[in-house]
Amino acid sequence: MKLYIGNKNYSSWSMRPWVLLKAFNIAFEEVRLRFDFTPGSDFYKTLDAIGATGKVPVLVDDTGFAVWDTLAIVETLAERFPSHAIWPRDPQLRARARSVCAEMHSGFSALRNTCPMNIEADLSGLSAELLAKEPALGRDLQRLQTLWADALAISGGPFLFGQFSAADAFFAPVVMRLHGYGLPVTAQASAYARTLQTHPAVAAWVNEALAEQDFIELDEPYRKSR
Amino acid sequence: MKLYIGNKNYSSWSMRPWVLLKAFNIAFEEVRLRFDFTPGSDFYKTLDAIGATGKVPVLVDDTGFAVWDTLAIVETLAERFPSHAIWPRDPQLRARARSVCAEMHSGFSALRNTCPMNIEADLSGLSAELLAKEPALGRDLQRLQTLWADALAISGGPFLFGQFSAADAFFAPVVMRLHGYGLPVTAQASAYARTLQTHPAVAAWVNEALAEQDFIELDEPYRKSR
Ligand SMILES: N[C@@H](CCC(=O)N[C@@H](CS)C(=O)NCC(=O)O)C(=O)O
Ligand SMILES: N[C@@H](CCC(=O)N[C@@H](CS)C(=O)NCC(=O)O)C(=O)O
Repeated sequence: MKLYIGNKNYSSWSMRPWVLLKAFNIAFEEVRLRFDFTPGSDFYKTLDAIGATGKVPVLVDDTGFAVWDTLAIVETLAERFPSHAIWPRDPQLRARARSVCAEMHSGFSALRNTCPMNIEADLSGLSAELLAKEPALGRDLQRLQTLWADALAISGGPFLFGQFSAADAFFAPVVMRLHGYGLPVTAQASAYARTLQTHPAVAAWVNEALAEQDFIELDEPYRKSR
Repeated sequence: MKLYIGNKNYSSWSMRPWVLLKAFNIAFEEVRLRFDFTPGSDFYKTLDAIGATGKVPVLVDDTGFAVWDTLAIVETLAERFPSHAIWPRDPQLRARARSVCAEMHSGFSALRNTCPMNIEADLSGLSAELLAKEPALGRDLQRLQTLWADALAISGGPFLFGQFSAADAFFAPVVMRLHGYGLPVTAQASAYARTLQTHPAVAAWVNEALAEQDFIELDEPYRKSR
């Protein structure tokens, strides 16, 4: 089984299934494709050759079959590795975990666009300016904290739905954004963010992101160089 | 089991699980909430009261537990009604069906924003103008047709993955947009669109949409009135 991913410093979608696989100790081969969004780039050529659609992450199984999109990858893994509680075992917690992952998948666009993931960069000086310029960012942060608080209230924590699950993997890149942009959150949200950031699978991704030392202009709205 | 939906004429996300439930003859009670996106509206108050997050569709099970977001609803239904092939039975077709639904869920934004679903309206006169003004619309149409062609090639049709599945429910509102905006597509795509539009569950939704005779300004970028 291979997982195709982008730059670890930038690729928030790639981070999710990678962290999930590591957290559950599921063996896989990582194929890192350096971001290059120019038409005809090696990035696109490789994805084309494996039968995917121009985006990472992509999971390729042992028969060479490509599954793209984070959510489809997570559901496929949950099916193929039933001994791991990739989704919570309790049906209602599982349904709720799916609701919040799907909400993340199609929502939070202000947070995603205004604060693209950039693990190595300290952009915390921008926080007040970005929040002032982009009111939707504040609304996304508000919703995020309500979503987390509700999940932690029904599960009791320490992860969103009790034990670490796909839902935490889905919010791991968000936690990196809160950190990198110094976004103000409640004590409860910051405690959860800390729990998630110190999870070994998240810490492993972060370390490898820091080792990358690459600079992709398209993902750098705020820095001129490293 | 209750399914909360919006206006049938406009609510593309509501259409998906409704059509799916009807297609598989799964009994449910429909609760239609008239769109009203002003803060504090009955629309938002009702969603709040059931523990959802301001958007339709929402599935509420017999214990009163709310599952929101189309994708989470579909996965929950697939689990709770295993005797129905809501997802294709073949694991690879199922994985591919999930990939294309997730791609729809987070993508095709030009198609969704430029051509909001409006079942009763004949907006086919706008097609050339919209395609000229919005190059991303053409790219979305291109991708849509490749996605359909690939799925039909691996499954043999007549639906995307053979028999009618969640993937077809996911593309039902797209078919309504092709129709309403007169968007140009290949013969294969238009044959698939016809197959889907004449499916009894899709036809039932369309009839009820036509009976609504409502006008929601926010969903009407092109008409002044009915
Ligand atoms: N909905 C997709 C989003 C994937 C995505 O946007 N990936 C980015 C990198 S994080 C990408 O590959 N972009 C390349 C492009 O858009 O051309 C998923 O959940 O996997
Ligand atoms: N990702 C959601 C999208 C749902 C959605 O955007 N629903 C629209 C109607 S089609 C809505 O309720 N909008 C109200 C709002 O945005 O305040 C899903 O798949 O269910």
